[in-house]
Amino acid sequence: MEHTDHTTDFADAYASISADNDEQRWAFGSSFEDPLAGVDTSVPSGVDGMDLAAYCLMLGDDALVLSHRLQEWVTWAPELEDEVALANIALDLLGQARLLLARAGKADGSDRGEDAYAYLREAPEFRNVTLVELVNGDFAQSLVRLLVFSTYRLALLDHLRTSRDPVLAAIAAKGVKEVTYHRDYAARWMLRLGDGTNESHRRAVDGLAAVWPYVGELFEPHELESRLASADIGVDPSTLRGEFDAVVAEVLSAATLDIPDAGTEAPSQGRSHGRGRDGRHTEALTDLLAEMQSLARAHPEATW
Amino acid sequence: MEHTDHTTDFADAYASISADNDEQRWAFGSSFEDPLAGVDTSVPSGVDGMDLAAYCLMLGDDALVLSHRLQEWVTWAPELEDEVALANIALDLLGQARLLLARAGKADGSDRGEDAYAYLREAPEFRNVTLVELVNGDFAQSLVRLLVFSTYRLALLDHLRTSRDPVLAAIAAKGVKEVTYHRDYAARWMLRLGDGTNESHRRAVDGLAAVWPYVGELFEPHELESRLASADIGVDPSTLRGEFDAVVAEVLSAATLDIPDAGTEAPSQGRSHGRGRDGRHTEALTDLLAEMQSLARAHPEATW
Repeated sequence: MEHTDHTTDFADAYASISADNDEQRWAFGSSFEDPLAGVDTSVPSGVDGMDLAAYCLMLGDDALVLSHRLQEWVTWAPELEDEVALANIALDLLGQARLLLARAGKADGSDRGEDAYAYLREAPEFRNVTLVELVNGDFAQSLVRLLVFSTYRLALLDHLRTSRDPVLAAIAAKGVKEVTYHRDYAARWMLRLGDGTNESHRRAVDGLAAVWPYVGELFEPHELESRLASADIGVDPSTLRGEFDAVVAEVLSAATLDIPDAGTEAPSQGRSHGRGRDGRHTEALTDLLAEMQSLARAHPEATW
Repeated sequence: MEHTDHTTDFADAYASISADNDEQRWAFGSSFEDPLAGVDTSVPSGVDGMDLAAYCLMLGDDALVLSHRLQEWVTWAPELEDEVALANIALDLLGQARLLLARAGKADGSDRGEDAYAYLREAPEFRNVTLVELVNGDFAQSLVRLLVFSTYRLALLDHLRTSRDPVLAAIAAKGVKEVTYHRDYAARWMLRLGDGTNESHRRAVDGLAAVWPYVGELFEPHELESRLASADIGVDPSTLRGEFDAVVAEVLSAATLDIPDAGTEAPSQGRSHGRGRDGRHTEALTDLLAEMQSLARAHPEATW
């Protein structure tokens, strides 16, 4: 067979990575660079940079934490196809997290990189909703969570595309395309589960029951979210509930599954741990962070 | 902010997945379909279908097993950027594995899907080289392995592009683009490690020492590989050694690292477990398969 000498290609390796046509996939993966390089990251008028940073952490932490939970499935999924799909979804969310955490570092004036936020914060400094930190449960429960989260997040990002912060607007526009797939993937699995065997149906019902107590928290506006919504920077999540309910009702109906009673949504203030947007978390997050942060913290100054 | 009703989009979800412009990423991830659908999978003349299937398993298992080892890094990588990069690489290899295992099922006449090969075989039926099944070790050791494997596999796939089997040729052509990145990523990390701090240099040296005993096995032609190389279907790996040595020498020299002595390459027949291409594996593979196969085996007929 024909022989091509790859040795000579090696000298071009560094240049070729950034110039490659497969840019979309690799843009955030192989540049050793600031993911917001070249973007104007000045804070829009009439907004407190610290507020904007905290808001970016809320949305970034949601993506970061769920990305890790999904990655836990990659070697455990029931089919190779699902490993591929879940790995893709986790990767999309990780990309969203990187951009949002990097944007936080520009907004709060600290100029911290995204790694500092991911690896050097303690659990009470994380702003994610409780839903994303829960341990996976079985595959059905994980897919119910993915359906709930991606339906919520797609509605959120869709509105965020018109944010007065051009950086948030751009991150949201990219995210809408991604999360559209995530929701579709989760919805297809709900059909497969709900309208499948007795066993799969039962697991879907149990998954809905396990996840539903954490749905209400998604739509309770945090004071910061309300403030940034008024400034046309962020989104008031309570305005997203109608769309969420309509989509979920359509999916569950097609899947021959009942929507859990509204009464099963425990309001976050009624819970022992309180709400995630205020940094109040379950032990599940502490455990997740211990794993995620172990290497980076063992070598905080490592350039290797 | 502007409101878009996503409810109505849902009816198009199924159609939109396959029709989407982001096809390359999702082509193997969300179709619930045979990854070789529409491809002519007849066995070329003068080749035994069982031979071709076994060869596909060799190359497919290499990718499948290393993909899982890389995924183990995703929540442990030292920077978010590396999580993204390693997740991308793992995903590429998983995609290659799916195609190769699916091709095996068409070639041996069993028409088994790729999941049957991934989830229902025992360790002695796996054909991967020992290199890919070793536990990760530290980050430096994992990156040394990735450099070695991707340098070997890039040379292999490059030659396989002219295989008389059009399916293998197409899989190889796709893989060459992917593995070019993998090698470049690993090479960049070798520079960072070798030419970094004393600590990172020491870890790179230790990583090379740990990985090198498994290099020789990559280039020892298995009787099946020799046979298929003569039929212009496969590649004789011993012909790839020159290119491998040249690339590795260039990378390690730039990284101020020495190439381990040839004497540290233990020939596979001298090892207690023998060689992977014959199904002789270490306990590390047994452990990996136990995790990967647990869900699929617990519910062998599960449609959920």
